[in-house]
Amino acid sequence: MNLNREILNIAQEAQRASRFLAGVSSEIKNKVLFDMSKALLEKKDLILKANKKDISAAKKKGITSAFVDRLRLDERRIKEMSDSLLELMRLSDPIGEVIKAWRRPNGLWIHKVRVPLGVVAIIYESRPNVTSDCIGLCFKSGNSVILRGGSESLNSNLAIHQVLKEVFKENALPPGIATLIDTNDRRAVDILLRLDKFIDVVIPRGGESLIHKVVSSSRIPVIKHYKGICHIYVDEWADLNMAERICFNAKVQRPGVCNAMESMLVHKDIAVRFLPGMIKKFISAGVEIRGCSLTKNIVPQVKIATEKDYHTEYLDLILSVRVVEDLKEAIEHINFYGSHHSDAIVTDNYDNALEFLRGVDSACVYVNASTRFTDGYQFGLGSEIGISTDKLHARGPMALEELTTYKYMVFGSGQIRE
Amino acid sequence: MNLNREILNIAQEAQRASRFLAGVSSEIKNKVLFDMSKALLEKKDLILKANKKDISAAKKKGITSAFVDRLRLDERRIKEMSDSLLELMRLSDPIGEVIKAWRRPNGLWIHKVRVPLGVVAIIYESRPNVTSDCIGLCFKSGNSVILRGGSESLNSNLAIHQVLKEVFKENALPPGIATLIDTNDRRAVDILLRLDKFIDVVIPRGGESLIHKVVSSSRIPVIKHYKGICHIYVDEWADLNMAERICFNAKVQRPGVCNAMESMLVHKDIAVRFLPGMIKKFISAGVEIRGCSLTKNIVPQVKIATEKDYHTEYLDLILSVRVVEDLKEAIEHINFYGSHHSDAIVTDNYDNALEFLRGVDSACVYVNASTRFTDGYQFGLGSEIGISTDKLHARGPMALEELTTYKYMVFGSGQIRE
Repeated sequence: MNLNREILNIAQEAQRASRFLAGVSSEIKNKVLFDMSKALLEKKDLILKANKKDISAAKKKGITSAFVDRLRLDERRIKEMSDSLLELMRLSDPIGEVIKAWRRPNGLWIHKVRVPLGVVAIIYESRPNVTSDCIGLCFKSGNSVILRGGSESLNSNLAIHQVLKEVFKENALPPGIATLIDTNDRRAVDILLRLDKFIDVVIPRGGESLIHKVVSSSRIPVIKHYKGICHIYVDEWADLNMAERICFNAKVQRPGVCNAMESMLVHKDIAVRFLPGMIKKFISAGVEIRGCSLTKNIVPQVKIATEKDYHTEYLDLILSVRVVEDLKEAIEHINFYGSHHSDAIVTDNYDNALEFLRGVDSACVYVNASTRFTDGYQFGLGSEIGISTDKLHARGPMALEELTTYKYMVFGSGQIRE
Repeated sequence: MNLNREILNIAQEAQRASRFLAGVSSEIKNKVLFDMSKALLEKKDLILKANKKDISAAKKKGITSAFVDRLRLDERRIKEMSDSLLELMRLSDPIGEVIKAWRRPNGLWIHKVRVPLGVVAIIYESRPNVTSDCIGLCFKSGNSVILRGGSESLNSNLAIHQVLKEVFKENALPPGIATLIDTNDRRAVDILLRLDKFIDVVIPRGGESLIHKVVSSSRIPVIKHYKGICHIYVDEWADLNMAERICFNAKVQRPGVCNAMESMLVHKDIAVRFLPGMIKKFISAGVEIRGCSLTKNIVPQVKIATEKDYHTEYLDLILSVRVVEDLKEAIEHINFYGSHHSDAIVTDNYDNALEFLRGVDSACVYVNASTRFTDGYQFGLGSEIGISTDKLHARGPMALEELTTYKYMVFGSGQIRE
């Protein structure tokens, strides 16, 4: 079939299915989520086998270890995917919530009611667990979903999608609820992004070039899940032991994810006391340090950072370091070089803490905690579609509620406008 | 000066001013709004004089009466503009509101806090009152605004902007808070729409070609304020007297605005009883009727509607009419031909009312009331930037709250991720 026609069909089917899904009760949705969760465990061998294919092909291409970390599935990760679906089952259904209701002096009774967005398209990197998370989240929030994952994870995604599609079929639900675009033909995305009559939002998650491409060619509203250039600023008033623990955790605990620290800023007055021990600890954990000239003055064995380093999301055991004059310079650095994702200050100074929270223009701003907490689960929101770095509609972890919109339902008794 | 450079300067100044404005207290903002409100009244002659220039130039071009209605200012409208600013003063400041806060088991204390969007660009039709409304709304919600109004209203807009700019100056506020693009060079908009580093959202209000142009060339997120093809469906169970009052109000009371009815759908079983009287009343009020063949069978003097009529926002004393089989066909017609703005059912049947509210995919859905109530004031939200026909971020009347975003502020005490 012609690719244009094929993608159009997918979008039309998705819209039709979304109108059906909007009327499905919470009870049925929860029962299906339970079945989905069970099916992933029962058919894990099929999924792991497909994932092995993807892993070995990726290794042949010589990709980074952080990339393989995100691509790899194992029993534990499949259990986590399954558990995510169970948790979604337990979370309350956002659809139908009356966000606000009030009566006007003329007797009009206005209800602001939460409803599904409709059709959500997600374009994502090669992380197969995202496939089941997105299908579950969109399903629970009453949306159809069209998925386009990274080409390196196609076999894994196909296997996961196949397992879940069978659950929909067994429950007499239309297949258009969740479609995986199963071609690696790059024109598919261009075609998809023009179908604003059928698709309500597109969520790109991934690198700079992907996001730019989507933003510049989409006629559909976009919520960007952009890179995480996360900073921790160690203030002159920091508890330096706490700072060391937090910075180490934010860099080393899982370097391949978007909420890991990529850049550490240190106040000039504590740099001499803080940096030697901190950098020693990083180096012994295999972290490569790229510092400013002041950093290098204090710890001569570090590499010199280029301007580009401060703009880079390494997603790997590499860290840029900069010694700053003061809090103000730290905030300006973060707003200029950061990606408005997650940034933290370590300080015992009350005013500096508040000034940092106010001044840093990011989705999540922390005092005395690791940036690694920017996550739907860690926030207590349940699993998430990703971390929005946009300001419109959803900012930060994008969970069930952020996958909805609202409409105003107005109950009258013959009111007309004078 | 080079146009590229000029527009870039405007955007950079606006961003700088927005960072200043984010820190201005509610007290100061309210004092300035009071001054703005006073200044509009004190300098109304200047504004009316500029508006006269625009009106006579527009009349020479032979534009429609609905267009002139929107362009025209008089003492009453300037009083309304001034009152809008006073009402904004009285509304509570959305900035700093803690939307939600909770404590996690690990002791992290998460606050979801309302903050300004930053810089808002508004591209709008020739309605000069929008100029002061937008400046007031953006100012109260802590945002800088860049305005680009319809070329026919340039003199009026310049006068209003000048009056308000002087108030900012008297209050020692940066001029970048509100900028009016004062060239009619159409390239200015293209340049503006690429400046996503400085502008956080663009809101186009107006016709189809403007919206399409903005959506296809903008790198900045867009909230569309699209046309209002509003329907009223007269159900078989309608109180026909009420239906006549509501339909007449929705079409005739102010035909030049987006929440006026453009298309009337009538259930086949009451068409013979309802249409002759209704259409007679419309015709005597100067409304031209374009109906389906069934309508013409019942009232032979009406014109026949083309397919295009059902897609058209007349903004004038013209109405398309269609007789439908049932509620289902009415809902399908509205979802297909409508603009997802405001649609109403007139019925005494409980199930049909609920089915209409659920099934019609529009920002505002009404039972037994005129669509003319879709309006920030009428909803009790205060003045609005416009009516969003989008589903993301803001849907329906877009008032103060919809001009904000949020950030997560997380208070820790050394937490790291295990």
